[in-house]
Amino acid sequence: MTFNFQAPSEIIFGSGKIDELVNIIKPKSENIIIIKGASNRFDYIFETLKSNGIDYSIYCVKNEPLIEDVDRAVTLAKTNLSNLVLGIGGGSVIDVAKAVGIMLLNPGEILDYLEVIGKGEKLTEPSIPTIIVPTTSGTGAEVTKNSVLKSIQHKRKVSMRSPEMIPKTVLIDPKLMLTLPSTTTTYTGMDALTQVIEPFISSLSNPFTDSLCRDAIPRAVDALVGLKEKPSDIKLREEMAYVSLMGGLALANAKLGAVHGFAGPIGGMFEIPHGLICAILLPNTIKVNIEAIESLGLEEDINKYNQLAKLISSDKNLTIRDLPKFLYDLNKKLEIPTLSHFGIKKSDLKEIVDLSKNSSSMKGNTVSLTETQMMNILESSL
Amino acid sequence: MTFNFQAPSEIIFGSGKIDELVNIIKPKSENIIIIKGASNRFDYIFETLKSNGIDYSIYCVKNEPLIEDVDRAVTLAKTNLSNLVLGIGGGSVIDVAKAVGIMLLNPGEILDYLEVIGKGEKLTEPSIPTIIVPTTSGTGAEVTKNSVLKSIQHKRKVSMRSPEMIPKTVLIDPKLMLTLPSTTTTYTGMDALTQVIEPFISSLSNPFTDSLCRDAIPRAVDALVGLKEKPSDIKLREEMAYVSLMGGLALANAKLGAVHGFAGPIGGMFEIPHGLICAILLPNTIKVNIEAIESLGLEEDINKYNQLAKLISSDKNLTIRDLPKFLYDLNKKLEIPTLSHFGIKKSDLKEIVDLSKNSSSMKGNTVSLTETQMMNILESSL
Ligand SMILES: [Fe+2]
Ligand SMILES: [Fe+2]
Repeated sequence: MTFNFQAPSEIIFGSGKIDELVNIIKPKSENIIIIKGASNRFDYIFETLKSNGIDYSIYCVKNEPLIEDVDRAVTLAKTNLSNLVLGIGGGSVIDVAKAVGIMLLNPGEILDYLEVIGKGEKLTEPSIPTIIVPTTSGTGAEVTKNSVLKSIQHKRKVSMRSPEMIPKTVLIDPKLMLTLPSTTTTYTGMDALTQVIEPFISSLSNPFTDSLCRDAIPRAVDALVGLKEKPSDIKLREEMAYVSLMGGLALANAKLGAVHGFAGPIGGMFEIPHGLICAILLPNTIKVNIEAIESLGLEEDINKYNQLAKLISSDKNLTIRDLPKFLYDLNKKLEIPTLSHFGIKKSDLKEIVDLSKNSSSMKGNTVSLTETQMMNILESSL
Repeated sequence: MTFNFQAPSEIIFGSGKIDELVNIIKPKSENIIIIKGASNRFDYIFETLKSNGIDYSIYCVKNEPLIEDVDRAVTLAKTNLSNLVLGIGGGSVIDVAKAVGIMLLNPGEILDYLEVIGKGEKLTEPSIPTIIVPTTSGTGAEVTKNSVLKSIQHKRKVSMRSPEMIPKTVLIDPKLMLTLPSTTTTYTGMDALTQVIEPFISSLSNPFTDSLCRDAIPRAVDALVGLKEKPSDIKLREEMAYVSLMGGLALANAKLGAVHGFAGPIGGMFEIPHGLICAILLPNTIKVNIEAIESLGLEEDINKYNQLAKLISSDKNLTIRDLPKFLYDLNKKLEIPTLSHFGIKKSDLKEIVDLSKNSSSMKGNTVSLTETQMMNILESSL
């Protein structure tokens, strides 16, 4: 039994907790840089800050988290002598906010620290204090130690990482998610589901992350399906936000698997929401993994997949054999399309496999997959 | 669903992880103050630090964590310009180490910040970086935000607390516990068991802490009973250390109950190890709680106690009715004495109730207990 557990110093969770934001910020700083998304849904929060005497400047992330976004926001923060980062938004906003926090005190430029396309140097200085308020339930980026940034030039999504990048304070208010559009709810929700499944069946799972996943998996499917019918049910939003948080904590401390191994490269090459990529790939990845562990006779893994089957469905007779069908049916219910819907062709798959096979997430997969098995997953998801 | 979750930035868990201590300290500081206990069992660790060029001074906590211990260690640290606290030991050592870390940058004296007997002022400055290496499996103090210190003058154990007191890094190596004496193993283990039970049935329990307790409770009893026979079984030591960690995280974020409500005052008035007090009081507290929730018809609580019965025993037919007997039998198996064994008399009980009834832990109890019910618990534990 061996594990490392890294987490924010404080996680504040609950409907209406956004009202505590002023008090959390007040003792810490009166000059903050706010990173937000394109929507103006949460501007009322900034008004409250202003009326409480908190100064701020705002940087807006339009779409995907670009390297240029971090550069521009860092310049803005330096000009205004900001001493606290507040990120309010979805995954892209959170990734930019974390990168801004760490780049403010570290010398050089982002490419010095980015993996794969950059120099991958070590971040030696700490982050300035960072508060994250997620407005979607999916990525879990609010509790992890890396930022995934997109380089348009390289057509790649790559990470910079440091334990110092784990935000100091995270405030999760499910009320903020009530206005999330239906498709975003489904896609980010499928990301959250994948992120409590993959750490549970990861080769690096441990009792601590397992206990979080065991609690979260049964909640995930109910909330996902429920929110399709009742998007403004606060109880379901709470459940989904909780699952998302558990997924973030689990993946940060037990890695993911092949779904996320593929999702990085595909997200770099094509314009598809991350959660949707996860949703598309999950059933076939589970299917190929099951075939692999059964043919290798890996009893411990087979047992874990059987546990997963019991956790994921209210039907306690479900076993490992029924898992792929359960996930195909879930995708159908949630109207998840396939890869070809986004112009991905058979001729693209070789490149995806090449870019995916050495990724950090792929190394967390239950078993090491052959290139043929990887192709198999992608082909059946076309 | 509402909760706050506060935890160390990094928890490193595993047999042999003590070997990583040098690398954890090296980048952070080369001038540390070590807080340790009376035993010399772990002096070899300090030798390793020295041979790696890390300077340190040592303060030794003889027995209980006294206010004077903190004062003296702070003076030593100031003299030596220490910039990092390393606490290696049991609960007393950890409590002193955390208090030293926070007192180094905060003005005034300890009594300014102590609750009940002091001014209870707010600690405004942060702690200097603190690394904790527990050598017992019980208190969970390595992940909580308070220090319990003893005032000989007041005959009381009282807390000072601040979120800043949560240690930054915690290293838990079950190998260090292999040499723990048998009675200490049992007493600290009973503390750990109590600390995964009380947050689970606390009025402030939440899904997150529940998931930690659900995983830990079944492990606790097996490890406790197992270690009595096989004190050098590393797997059992790992299980016990894991239970202790989960208890610490759970109690820090969901409070405790009447057992710990009583344990503070009793520990101030009499010389009894904390874990042993918990062990003595647990069965009768559970019994009186069950009578209370059944007579009030609190269905949700009854359900929770039924869950506890299923978790605590491998016999899946166990219900709420069987819980007290199960705990009495466990105490018998572990040779736990009763309160009168330590000279506590019926005439002392009124004072214990008076000192306990408004304690922070008592407020976490499943239901609010009457003074008669409190007396009932103590009398049947004499
Ligand atoms: Fe994801
Ligand atoms: Fe305790």
